[in-house]
Amino acid sequence: MTEQRYAELLDYLGVTWDLVKLGGLAAWDQQTMMPPAGAGVRARQLATVSKLVHEQLVSDELGELLDELRPYEESLDYDSDEASLIRWTRRDREKELQVPGELREEQTRAAAEAFPVWVEARRTSDFASFRPYLERNVELRRRYADCFETDEPYDALLDDFEPGMKTAEVRAVFERLKEGLVPLIAEAAAQEIDDSFLRQGRFPVAAQRELEQVVLGRFGFREGSWRIDPTEHPFASSLGTSDIRMTTRYPEDELSGVFAAMHEGGHALYEHNVDQALERTPLCRGVSLALHESQSRMFENLVGRSLAFWRWGFPYVQRLFADQLGGVTLEDFHRAINKVQPSLIRIEADEATYSLHIILRFELEQDLLAGSVDVGDLPAVWNERMNEYLGVEVPDDARGVLQDVHWSRGTIGYFPTYALGNVISVQLWEKVLEDVPDLEQQLERGELTSLTDWLRERLWRHGRKFTPQETLERIVGGGLDPEPYLAYLNGKLGALA
Amino acid sequence: MTEQRYAELLDYLGVTWDLVKLGGLAAWDQQTMMPPAGAGVRARQLATVSKLVHEQLVSDELGELLDELRPYEESLDYDSDEASLIRWTRRDREKELQVPGELREEQTRAAAEAFPVWVEARRTSDFASFRPYLERNVELRRRYADCFETDEPYDALLDDFEPGMKTAEVRAVFERLKEGLVPLIAEAAAQEIDDSFLRQGRFPVAAQRELEQVVLGRFGFREGSWRIDPTEHPFASSLGTSDIRMTTRYPEDELSGVFAAMHEGGHALYEHNVDQALERTPLCRGVSLALHESQSRMFENLVGRSLAFWRWGFPYVQRLFADQLGGVTLEDFHRAINKVQPSLIRIEADEATYSLHIILRFELEQDLLAGSVDVGDLPAVWNERMNEYLGVEVPDDARGVLQDVHWSRGTIGYFPTYALGNVISVQLWEKVLEDVPDLEQQLERGELTSLTDWLRERLWRHGRKFTPQETLERIVGGGLDPEPYLAYLNGKLGALA
Repeated sequence: MTEQRYAELLDYLGVTWDLVKLGGLAAWDQQTMMPPAGAGVRARQLATVSKLVHEQLVSDELGELLDELRPYEESLDYDSDEASLIRWTRRDREKELQVPGELREEQTRAAAEAFPVWVEARRTSDFASFRPYLERNVELRRRYADCFETDEPYDALLDDFEPGMKTAEVRAVFERLKEGLVPLIAEAAAQEIDDSFLRQGRFPVAAQRELEQVVLGRFGFREGSWRIDPTEHPFASSLGTSDIRMTTRYPEDELSGVFAAMHEGGHALYEHNVDQALERTPLCRGVSLALHESQSRMFENLVGRSLAFWRWGFPYVQRLFADQLGGVTLEDFHRAINKVQPSLIRIEADEATYSLHIILRFELEQDLLAGSVDVGDLPAVWNERMNEYLGVEVPDDARGVLQDVHWSRGTIGYFPTYALGNVISVQLWEKVLEDVPDLEQQLERGELTSLTDWLRERLWRHGRKFTPQETLERIVGGGLDPEPYLAYLNGKLGALA
Repeated sequence: MTEQRYAELLDYLGVTWDLVKLGGLAAWDQQTMMPPAGAGVRARQLATVSKLVHEQLVSDELGELLDELRPYEESLDYDSDEASLIRWTRRDREKELQVPGELREEQTRAAAEAFPVWVEARRTSDFASFRPYLERNVELRRRYADCFETDEPYDALLDDFEPGMKTAEVRAVFERLKEGLVPLIAEAAAQEIDDSFLRQGRFPVAAQRELEQVVLGRFGFREGSWRIDPTEHPFASSLGTSDIRMTTRYPEDELSGVFAAMHEGGHALYEHNVDQALERTPLCRGVSLALHESQSRMFENLVGRSLAFWRWGFPYVQRLFADQLGGVTLEDFHRAINKVQPSLIRIEADEATYSLHIILRFELEQDLLAGSVDVGDLPAVWNERMNEYLGVEVPDDARGVLQDVHWSRGTIGYFPTYALGNVISVQLWEKVLEDVPDLEQQLERGELTSLTDWLRERLWRHGRKFTPQETLERIVGGGLDPEPYLAYLNGKLGALA
């Protein structure tokens, strides 16, 4: 009887998860393939998926199934697939039930209205026109946070991306990061590193694609289970563990596409390597955004900006871009791809300054939510802190407070996951090195198998079975710790000097 | 109150139709973009869409809405969007309710099991291995037909593709066609026409794509609302009236891709030009498969194999394939693209013999359903009739009874719509010529606007508001009539002699 009910739960969640993935397909298509005039109907289709997934989660049918399965759940090993699936479904459902339907709808409507206004405001650097929309989004996020019992409002928002994570914990980590990064960056930025050969010139798309295939070919994807397409804002998406969609961009005047591809490749490997027994369940995805970002950052930075990896890969780069890079040494290339330079735009920031862009946003989000910074004062506060943390002058709001899409969508609480990803990536990397002491020598031969085997076994295959905290505890034997990341940056940037 | 209920119906059907279109996206992606290893999960996602669409249609909620809207429907003009929408939704729901869920599921399962067996049976030309699966599919179709009250069982199957069409009507049309086509084809096939320059040689894909863009550029699609991609079996699909996906193939050793593109272009124009007021409703599609096919055949054959159109287009062809066709005259090209030659494979058949391939299948389907031909005897009967109708010897079942996918999927009753499309295309064309007497001169200038304006006004914009019979009656003032098609073929093939 219990077995039958559990089978029913699997069937039920299979349908739910198929809907989630159909939404994923519709979103991927929207950003890679869809003719532009399809946008209006596509938005409705995506809204329908959201509505149906919501209905699946809050249904009485699911509630009854979960109630009946409680004794079964309690009889199971906490670490089992079955216990995890029931536990997470219960948690997802409870969160979903906590928020009134009208509030969800108002949020969706407000975001849909704010987005085009933001696009135009950014284009014209006109914060004033966006201000009322942002005020409304912030107010709605406050009301959303009020739906949950938490230590502070931001906890509720963060929980959507990092289940169980507390703002206080993140704050402590970020305080330490800021303290370590500000002087480190000031020192690194003073170094004279020439990266002009990466940023000025011509990098033909065909050669970029070839390099990308050579590099991703080392990542160990199963044959016939992935593709990569051009898009404006790179992302990775999985429509199934064997149907992985990466996207990237190929600006022809700089060599950045391969790093974007490695970043998305890290996300993609994570989704690709979830245990196939979890397919078509809500456990078939990464633990959280920060854990996901730890993988993209690991492959983009710890692998993809290491001297060892390019000892293997630089000959390809030189062959493919002979005119441009024929006379550049491996060492110059390595210094250039690791150059630290405070700048205005988050998504163009280097590995070291990136986290400061994030910390600034994390702080401002809390200030907005608490009302301690008024939306109207946001540009001034933004500019002041950019100067304080990164030493840069913000010339206009387009390159300042208006640069990111997130707030226009009503997404608050998401930013910190990017920097947490940096922190976690190095915590994991240290553990990899304990078990694979010759990893550097392997990278020098372009071999990633020991690394990917390690990550598959410890992290990837479990999908979303555990919380971020449980996951970290299982792998590194502790919680978030910024020290390895700071030590890594210190060592690396020191060596470049 | 009524208005509110009608708005609820629109909302409800918007969700249903979004699901249908998400299924369309998933199917398009499956055949154009999906990495092969994604197939397993994709099949489940498609099954989920079918299940959810079914549930939407049979729900009590929809039943109650339709009951409450009955007085409103009766108060409306029959031709209004609102009345049509209610009428068709009621009809779709009633058909859906007529069939027990277990039978539907068994059909889906049987088809899923039969398909891979058919693939292998065709590969090895081994009918015996496929026979039990086909027997099961036929038996399930019998049980399906039994769910409906009809004059004969085939009516029920035909109705899924041609609502309201009777087998007896199709039979009468096909008898006349057969009578006219058999001698016509024998005579035409005796002509010596050289088409070797279309079938032997090299037609680079890039040049084929350029020709396709030039030709489809004349079709008048709105900008940014369509795309065309390579696939194995060409099809057209709409994910919205402004999100049209065509597919085609580019074999490099023959010039056939442009005709496939024009065929799919006809389907695509129909879906693209449905009134946008019908978007996200079950009326937002063509009337029936035969009406749809009438459009693809019109653009492939009546436009795309006419001397007039290539008078405009042949210079492009010659420029793009100079090595291959530099020395070929327009007249030789025109004769070659219209060559009649009885052959084994339906999908490779010319315009004239195609209908005989269909009539054979239509007859055999009825025989199978009635049990007057046993599945075991099917290959022998097939071969005998191919000889009788087309004068060809079938060398093996792979090129005979096993060539089509349809029966492996349990699809019976679909084939006749292809030949009905031919018939209807010429009935409509005659009417176009009455209103646009200089159409030929327009085609000679590559101008399709008068034609597409006419079709949009009379046919396309109405979507699925009327039955096939109502639609024909409204446009040509009568029912199915094979004479125009026969007269057209007679005239054309005579002129080629």
